[in-house]
Amino acid sequence: MEEWAVGVDLGRTKIALGLIDPQKRIVRHRRLPTNADAGAQSVVERIAQSVDELRHELPATARICGLGICTPGPVDHETGVVGEVHEMRGLHHAPLRAMLADRLGLPVSLDHDAKAAALGEYHYGAGRGEPAMVYVVVGTGVGAAIVVDGQVYRGVRNTAGEIGHITLNRDGALCPCGSRGCVETYTSGPWLARRYQHRCERAGIVETATAPATGESVTARARQGDPIALQVLYEAGQALGVAVASVAMILDIELFVVGGSVAKAGDLLLAPARRTLLEYSYRSVGTRVRILASEMGEDAPILGCGWMACERRP
Amino acid sequence: MEEWAVGVDLGRTKIALGLIDPQKRIVRHRRLPTNADAGAQSVVERIAQSVDELRHELPATARICGLGICTPGPVDHETGVVGEVHEMRGLHHAPLRAMLADRLGLPVSLDHDAKAAALGEYHYGAGRGEPAMVYVVVGTGVGAAIVVDGQVYRGVRNTAGEIGHITLNRDGALCPCGSRGCVETYTSGPWLARRYQHRCERAGIVETATAPATGESVTARARQGDPIALQVLYEAGQALGVAVASVAMILDIELFVVGGSVAKAGDLLLAPARRTLLEYSYRSVGTRVRILASEMGEDAPILGCGWMACERRP
Repeated sequence: MEEWAVGVDLGRTKIALGLIDPQKRIVRHRRLPTNADAGAQSVVERIAQSVDELRHELPATARICGLGICTPGPVDHETGVVGEVHEMRGLHHAPLRAMLADRLGLPVSLDHDAKAAALGEYHYGAGRGEPAMVYVVVGTGVGAAIVVDGQVYRGVRNTAGEIGHITLNRDGALCPCGSRGCVETYTSGPWLARRYQHRCERAGIVETATAPATGESVTARARQGDPIALQVLYEAGQALGVAVASVAMILDIELFVVGGSVAKAGDLLLAPARRTLLEYSYRSVGTRVRILASEMGEDAPILGCGWMACERRP
Repeated sequence: MEEWAVGVDLGRTKIALGLIDPQKRIVRHRRLPTNADAGAQSVVERIAQSVDELRHELPATARICGLGICTPGPVDHETGVVGEVHEMRGLHHAPLRAMLADRLGLPVSLDHDAKAAALGEYHYGAGRGEPAMVYVVVGTGVGAAIVVDGQVYRGVRNTAGEIGHITLNRDGALCPCGSRGCVETYTSGPWLARRYQHRCERAGIVETATAPATGESVTARARQGDPIALQVLYEAGQALGVAVASVAMILDIELFVVGGSVAKAGDLLLAPARRTLLEYSYRSVGTRVRILASEMGEDAPILGCGWMACERRP
């Protein structure tokens, strides 16, 4: 029998499922609304119905070897229980792994979405064949998942990779975390928008400043040549470069793959990051380290979940 | 037979040997001049003669199970060959492990001195019973060795833990590494001295400023209440605290043990580091992380070498 896998990226608003063939291609995609307010049982049932439907599409020679699922926010990969995820109250403390395993009769793995994305990117994307990789998510926040020898490095409480709160400037902007000048105050979507609006106001560009700006809208404006948007993205990339330099020197890892919504800015973000990495590290480190865009994009967590379900060493 | 070990800390000017009993006490200490200019064969012969003498002091029921040796600078722990260590030209590229093993008929382990000290501190000192620990050496430079599950985390090229060049201030002093505002430009001995002299000159304290100041002399003056020395040490501690916060958030490790010559300043350095750690990290991280002074001091590398020789998993 061929071994196929199911990967499930359970997000705040939508659930993305993928049926993964033995060549690690996602041959079927499905999307469902998350609707976490309806409770864990309802979420599990909707996922399970989709899996049941996907099972009918399998070739006769194939079987599903397992299902991997990932969620944002804290999650206990050992017990398979979801933590308290912002905006997903209906799933707080749900034993999601056991519920899905019972309903589907399949082995189920559960992990954090950035870790799943890192595993997908490492095993099937930009990290293929590398000894180690740091996957950096730049979106609403800035986080990272560290992969060494094909496994996630977790630290003592499974919180390793909290790079969004590395201090870049002790006199910098006050971060909601209580510290100042954190990476997130430069590089995350909400702060990109905030910095953009602030600069526009300062420049007296009232019309633009009153329009709601998000990280994505700043990127869109930068693409159209808006000099303030370009500058804000440039500074975000510089901050990312300093953070990458620090992480590279601490971990001695040479590949950084950047994903997440803000990473869609591509080289507008990554080119200044690469330049700054060279400036703010040992030269020997700076010249060895590569900062690449994610290859797998939104498929990364689904593929990582498939890997967790069927390939991970116990 | 009881298993005893020999640990050897091979420094730039002196070699410190220790005979370690099964209770992990150093029951005999010996010191020799390094005199690396005489060449590797001479260094090996002097170490071996000391080991031969120590063997005569063993109880009849004891045998030496192995010898561990550590050196400053780059070293290949897998091949047992010393790299190009500054001020130790006579040992460049010496296959020190094989030379000692052949001469002594013992299993020999070779590693970097900070890594050996970290292992000593982790297994027998401040790190006992902890899941993980970062050993920070504050001396001529600032470096760290990371211990996870009792083993050194090395990274892909065995250079992990390069925390001395984390950027604390992008507009800070130019570091010899080519970057700016590195941890070392605040916290290392030479920079402590430099900052002290500069402040004295600026304050018009010519008499003090013309005296040669080292990291140790700055510490001594701080102990006597010199306000400039106290301020410079305070700022060094703050820089250390920011660096510890970053490393703790990246690695999710909660114990930092600080050794090295500047660490002898004790709480003059560590108290501001602890305060700053709380300010410049997630509160949940800052309150969990402890910064402790080394318990084993100069015995740490010797004990770590003993552990490498006789306790390390192959």
